[in-house]
Amino acid sequence: MSSIIDQAKKAKEASYTMFSLSSETKNQALLSIANALQERKLDIFEANDEDMVLAKQTNLPMPLQKRLLFDESKLSTVCEGLVQLTGLEDPVGKKLLATELDDGLSLYRISCPIGVIGIIFESRPDALVQIASLCLKTGNAVFLKGGSEAAKTNRILAEVISDAATASGLPEGFLTLLESREEVTEMLALSDYIDLIIPRGSNAFVKYIMDHSDIPVLGHADGVCHLYIHEQADIDMAVSIAVDSKTQYVAVCNAAETLLVDASVAGEILPRIADALRQKGVKLFGCEKSAAMLSVPQVSEWHQEYLDYQMSVKIVENIDKAINHINQFGSGHTDAIVTRDRVAADRFMNDVDSGNVFWNCSTRFSDGFKYGFGAEVGVSTSKIHARGPVGLDGMVTYKYKLIGNGQIVDDYAKGRKSFKHRPIDDNQ
Amino acid sequence: MSSIIDQAKKAKEASYTMFSLSSETKNQALLSIANALQERKLDIFEANDEDMVLAKQTNLPMPLQKRLLFDESKLSTVCEGLVQLTGLEDPVGKKLLATELDDGLSLYRISCPIGVIGIIFESRPDALVQIASLCLKTGNAVFLKGGSEAAKTNRILAEVISDAATASGLPEGFLTLLESREEVTEMLALSDYIDLIIPRGSNAFVKYIMDHSDIPVLGHADGVCHLYIHEQADIDMAVSIAVDSKTQYVAVCNAAETLLVDASVAGEILPRIADALRQKGVKLFGCEKSAAMLSVPQVSEWHQEYLDYQMSVKIVENIDKAINHINQFGSGHTDAIVTRDRVAADRFMNDVDSGNVFWNCSTRFSDGFKYGFGAEVGVSTSKIHARGPVGLDGMVTYKYKLIGNGQIVDDYAKGRKSFKHRPIDDNQ
Repeated sequence: MSSIIDQAKKAKEASYTMFSLSSETKNQALLSIANALQERKLDIFEANDEDMVLAKQTNLPMPLQKRLLFDESKLSTVCEGLVQLTGLEDPVGKKLLATELDDGLSLYRISCPIGVIGIIFESRPDALVQIASLCLKTGNAVFLKGGSEAAKTNRILAEVISDAATASGLPEGFLTLLESREEVTEMLALSDYIDLIIPRGSNAFVKYIMDHSDIPVLGHADGVCHLYIHEQADIDMAVSIAVDSKTQYVAVCNAAETLLVDASVAGEILPRIADALRQKGVKLFGCEKSAAMLSVPQVSEWHQEYLDYQMSVKIVENIDKAINHINQFGSGHTDAIVTRDRVAADRFMNDVDSGNVFWNCSTRFSDGFKYGFGAEVGVSTSKIHARGPVGLDGMVTYKYKLIGNGQIVDDYAKGRKSFKHRPIDDNQ
Repeated sequence: MSSIIDQAKKAKEASYTMFSLSSETKNQALLSIANALQERKLDIFEANDEDMVLAKQTNLPMPLQKRLLFDESKLSTVCEGLVQLTGLEDPVGKKLLATELDDGLSLYRISCPIGVIGIIFESRPDALVQIASLCLKTGNAVFLKGGSEAAKTNRILAEVISDAATASGLPEGFLTLLESREEVTEMLALSDYIDLIIPRGSNAFVKYIMDHSDIPVLGHADGVCHLYIHEQADIDMAVSIAVDSKTQYVAVCNAAETLLVDASVAGEILPRIADALRQKGVKLFGCEKSAAMLSVPQVSEWHQEYLDYQMSVKIVENIDKAINHINQFGSGHTDAIVTRDRVAADRFMNDVDSGNVFWNCSTRFSDGFKYGFGAEVGVSTSKIHARGPVGLDGMVTYKYKLIGNGQIVDDYAKGRKSFKHRPIDDNQ
């Protein structure tokens, strides 16, 4: 096998030829991949069986074994996903801006692929199919590294996808599968060839990637989300949103980890919320006052992502203190306010420095599918490039195309001509 | 003076209160700054005189002395710039997307400031005023470091701007002036407080910043721009665009550095272009064939940014070879094709991996003012966040605001409700 740097060069070359793939070619390739996966399913299931046998022998925890399983049901889901993706608008080639700089000199800002994307994900083999297909739809070549538990499944999936894609007109080198950690370490240094890294996995893992590469990273290290109950909150709504934000699914990044309650209503509201949360099995940790009020232990660390049936509680003097607390201890992911007061809500949504700021609804709404993006690449807590849930448009960039008929700058510099800067309305 | 980290914390706090500055407050502050600069102009000129005296004593090269001078004319230009900036649309608070996820649950993607921007620039003191005002207009707090030759001028300009801004409602900590290289080195490590760095200066300098900080950098290290003369080129147009691209202003990043000529027309076109360039004083360096044809020395290195009356020339077999050469040796800045053939032009513009790809016009057109952006923050060769000439919208990011009336995710997960994802057309 060739070295990582040679494969990265090949991926870069492939990415150049992918810049001008038509929507038809890309959609046809997605359908061919779905067909090929179905045709090769017995081989795929056999490879997955081998991974599963090893997983059982090595006592891989049951939740990970469930994620590792690639059966008829998961195959069916990924194939549905491939077909759905063909129905989404092509994110490449969109006209984002059009200006006539002068007669016959037209400027267009056009969306285009980024180039080569490196994606590192954990043990679910279905993620490999999803990720490869998102890259194909956005015209990017991809370096993929999955969990080692799924090595055999990933290998055959990558082979089937790669073969079907190249048979449909994608270039060799569109998809490269990395198989060891050493290869990932090598990849992190290849900023000349890899344009963006999207890590999926534990916080510690994402943070490691961010700290060890010059390549831009799209992702979030953690989700310390807050729910703030304002003095003008509707009590029933506050209880309902608190329960949903904390317990609807505790193991995800947009679950609320900290409850902030305005001091003026804490005596009335906090016991009711605490009761409702306890009924769902949530263990609370409080600030000095709330710990005393609710007879719970004190919080040891406010930047705490439990991902479990546990929650921090703090009584705050006013909205200023709430916003300060969130900006100091949050992770810029998702934070919500419950209030009847529009001025307070606007204040909160403007001043909280997070990608998702909510008013009177659950923190659990922040993801690409709920937002209607059709696909989700990840959730970004970065402020650069893409923020919040990222759909296909987070995997493209843009370029400026300027089309003239011989114009030179000297004519404008010397005043023989002048710029007109008229927006172009046509759909040329 | 407090330490850099304390100042960065203060800037971060200031940035939070800047999230909700009104357009009126920002524009009023810009006008107050213009007035204050005029009122304090004698003090400013005196400080500049001291810098100029030192510059002469230390034999600062004449071009740098010219850049360092801050006189009535430069003051007038920066004040005009401040007034013009008040006329531009506020880049903050723009609705970029609006979707009703369900009845009474509305999602908005709203542009907002990034936070704290670190800007490092060379000896022109007028750049300080321009940069501070761009940051103010976009609602960002700013860390500024100018050239040490302009220390006294920068100090008084920063003081006047800071005082006028805070008197107009901007927070203390909006503007921080750094005065030593050690402080810049410290700043590069403060990724918790500084969200984006915009370096202006030499390639080596920008590259140093990019290599020595985890903070995202907006800028370009170099501009190795190409002009490709296709076999279907109009000869007169090719000559005119070549002369303009190379010589209209040689010391800038969008000047062409390499001329690529299709082999089938090189015999006819290349001598004419070479003559026209030589008349402007351009020294040529060729590939083996063109060096022989034109009797010039051979090129030693194709990734060469001359920024001078010098140019590399290469005869290429066809458009594929031209595109490959550009993608291999270019810097992703600006590359142009001259041709009558629309298919070839489209091919070139799609497959050349650069921020600006031009057809039948000079490479010198790629900048924010010529593009009609009203202001230019810089030119980016990165593909992430902002690419090509960057206007005010490169200094903002966005957040998602979700406004409901008590919605919880459990209702959608359990099928009691379903998403509608209707675009919102109103201008609410």
